[in-house]
Amino acid sequence: MNFNYPNGKRYTPNEIGTARTRGTRKNSSYSNRGMTLEDDLNVTNEFYRERKIAVIHKKPTPVQIVQVDYPNRSAAVIKEAYFKLASTTDYNGVYKGKYIDFEAKETQNTTSFPLKNFHQHQIKHMEEVLNQGGICFVILRFSRFEQVYLLEAKHVITFWERMDNGGRKSITKEEIEQKGHHIPLGYQPRIDYIKIIDRF
Amino acid sequence: MNFNYPNGKRYTPNEIGTARTRGTRKNSSYSNRGMTLEDDLNVTNEFYRERKIAVIHKKPTPVQIVQVDYPNRSAAVIKEAYFKLASTTDYNGVYKGKYIDFEAKETQNTTSFPLKNFHQHQIKHMEEVLNQGGICFVILRFSRFEQVYLLEAKHVITFWERMDNGGRKSITKEEIEQKGHHIPLGYQPRIDYIKIIDRF
Repeated sequence: MNFNYPNGKRYTPNEIGTARTRGTRKNSSYSNRGMTLEDDLNVTNEFYRERKIAVIHKKPTPVQIVQVDYPNRSAAVIKEAYFKLASTTDYNGVYKGKYIDFEAKETQNTTSFPLKNFHQHQIKHMEEVLNQGGICFVILRFSRFEQVYLLEAKHVITFWERMDNGGRKSITKEEIEQKGHHIPLGYQPRIDYIKIIDRF
Repeated sequence: MNFNYPNGKRYTPNEIGTARTRGTRKNSSYSNRGMTLEDDLNVTNEFYRERKIAVIHKKPTPVQIVQVDYPNRSAAVIKEAYFKLASTTDYNGVYKGKYIDFEAKETQNTTSFPLKNFHQHQIKHMEEVLNQGGICFVILRFSRFEQVYLLEAKHVITFWERMDNGGRKSITKEEIEQKGHHIPLGYQPRIDYIKIIDRF
């Protein structure tokens, strides 16, 4: 079932989901553990916090609240609300005093990563973060291969501009392998992206 | 009307509101402009982003979504959801590569700032941010005086611990004047907290 965001952008949870929407998928092929990319990153971030390695959180899903009911003194129930497009990326936090900022997405595609996983606001946000000296990247998963890559925001922006100039609407897997950093899946932490950050 | 969060903590929008809940107050005494602390900070952060001074955003209100309806192909309506307690502070971002993190609260009290404006998770988060070398503070407004202060997280933590050890459940206005930094209200930006950060 498809629906649109208020801005008319199509929301396609079953084709190319965000980390969040993958959570609703029934037959997860990922590691046969039923873990989504978001789950893995949450566990990873918890590990980082517990070991005092970094403090990174996922931002709450942005929601426009329209109507709230108070059935009794002890509870407020939101009866009408709508999903809003995020104006930033989903994850941010601090590592050794530095600002860390990233978005996480996965695709069922096998040969490329569609850029429609991102939207203009997020690309603009990445540019702003880089201008301000923050560390900014995306974590991309090819679900069918269970492969995870970290791609620095500067490359994402370049590929986005290529699309804006009439070029392809995706980043090829080859380009991601070449420009990005492969993150081997581990046990603790699951997706050790901080180790990659240490290199650059 | 009062209600409780799922954890039983009481939510008191009309006595001591968060920046967010103040938005619902009808007769705002603040500058007779009908602006809440949250409004002022949003405008300030927008100013900072436009001038490329800093990139700071308010996090979305955390909501637990229970039921979503799809009345037609073009819209998803959240029909049942609940407010969740935030596990972090409301605002964060990047300034000159550094991680910035803060919470904003206001009170109608005239002599002290009640610590029940914060909760244990937020204090723990502030400690974690400081341990990781981030810049962390609170912005406190005494609504009746239209006075705004920046108080560094290290002091908030000390006052919280005093309460935990049986001491008073608030920070006196005198203590805030002494340990905190007064932020004069301006036009552009409204609440120039970055100028204070430059000092420490």
